[in-house]
Amino acid sequence: MILHGYFRSTASWRVRIALGLKGLVAQQVFHHLRQGEQRAPDYLAINPQGLVPALVTDEGAVLTQSLAICEYLDETHPEPPLLPAQPLARAKVRAAAQLIASDIHPVQNLKVLQRLRDLGHDEAQVQAWARAVIEEGLEAFQALLPGDAGRFAFGDRPGLADLCLVPQLGNARRFGVALRWPRLTQIEAACLELEAFKAAVPGVQPDAE
Amino acid sequence: MILHGYFRSTASWRVRIALGLKGLVAQQVFHHLRQGEQRAPDYLAINPQGLVPALVTDEGAVLTQSLAICEYLDETHPEPPLLPAQPLARAKVRAAAQLIASDIHPVQNLKVLQRLRDLGHDEAQVQAWARAVIEEGLEAFQALLPGDAGRFAFGDRPGLADLCLVPQLGNARRFGVALRWPRLTQIEAACLELEAFKAAVPGVQPDAE
Repeated sequence: MILHGYFRSTASWRVRIALGLKGLVAQQVFHHLRQGEQRAPDYLAINPQGLVPALVTDEGAVLTQSLAICEYLDETHPEPPLLPAQPLARAKVRAAAQLIASDIHPVQNLKVLQRLRDLGHDEAQVQAWARAVIEEGLEAFQALLPGDAGRFAFGDRPGLADLCLVPQLGNARRFGVALRWPRLTQIEAACLELEAFKAAVPGVQPDAE
Repeated sequence: MILHGYFRSTASWRVRIALGLKGLVAQQVFHHLRQGEQRAPDYLAINPQGLVPALVTDEGAVLTQSLAICEYLDETHPEPPLLPAQPLARAKVRAAAQLIASDIHPVQNLKVLQRLRDLGHDEAQVQAWARAVIEEGLEAFQALLPGDAGRFAFGDRPGLADLCLVPQLGNARRFGVALRWPRLTQIEAACLELEAFKAAVPGVQPDAE
């Protein structure tokens, strides 16, 4: 498998964690988003959307969208599972993951912030936009977590919600969000004791700056 | 089951289609988003995120995030399936659905457009933002579809990608996007021959204006 990504892309980071949790190794190819390498013709031939991540399977199929890739990995390599067994529990974990993947990340990613700059906003306004989106989103994420706190977001095993949360908290820090949700940073600390999470952080990727 | 929604919310619209395809009937409760009813305390007690849709199951569990709800309906009522059987095919359909649910809709929804107005942008700039996001997203969505065109987005049965596409095309028209993707409007036409899609359009909902 080949994972096309970028060290700081939170969506790529999610997939790196999922691969690690499954004990899978993918060859990593990095595309420098700030230099627009994801728009190079050879990458657009792989993923016409010009976004990372993209996972190329051993059969040569190209998979996009981080959560779809994670569910694929979960279906093809069931152990350890990224989702609980029961439909209701699965729906709750998926909702928490999707809250981050739909309601936070796309509204504060590089592309949207560039749109704001193109509209004439200065860096302070751009950063304030990102912070507001992240703060509102993390507040909502916390409200979705079960009251009977396990070590991880949903119980005592890390899964789809955790692998979205940890990168999003990383992004929150980059934008200077004050992390006022102790439950979330406790989950993050529990995750970062695990090799799969440690090996996925941006700072240890080969393309880290 | 109770579905909390709003006639024009494309995320609610997706769930209405999914319920219809499964032959399920939910009591519908509508919240007027433009009047801020989703922020009323009684609704926040159900969904702290203050977003629609939320599905309350017969057991009283509250499910949020439209795609998580659709996957729940698919797991609890497997026929007819909203996803293909094979992991690779499932990943492709999920990626197309998530492209709309993550990369288009949240970047052009009511909340984000209001943020732009709050930053001082006039209606022309707000609408241009929405159009740009939708056009870029639909172009990318089309590129994800298989070359061997079936009646629907992926083959001859409607599923998760179709139930995202049809509402997004509805939104595109509202924002004055010129629909230059014949394959997408053909899929939409095929969908709208089906009762599940017909009954879900905003114009026939009890709260339609």
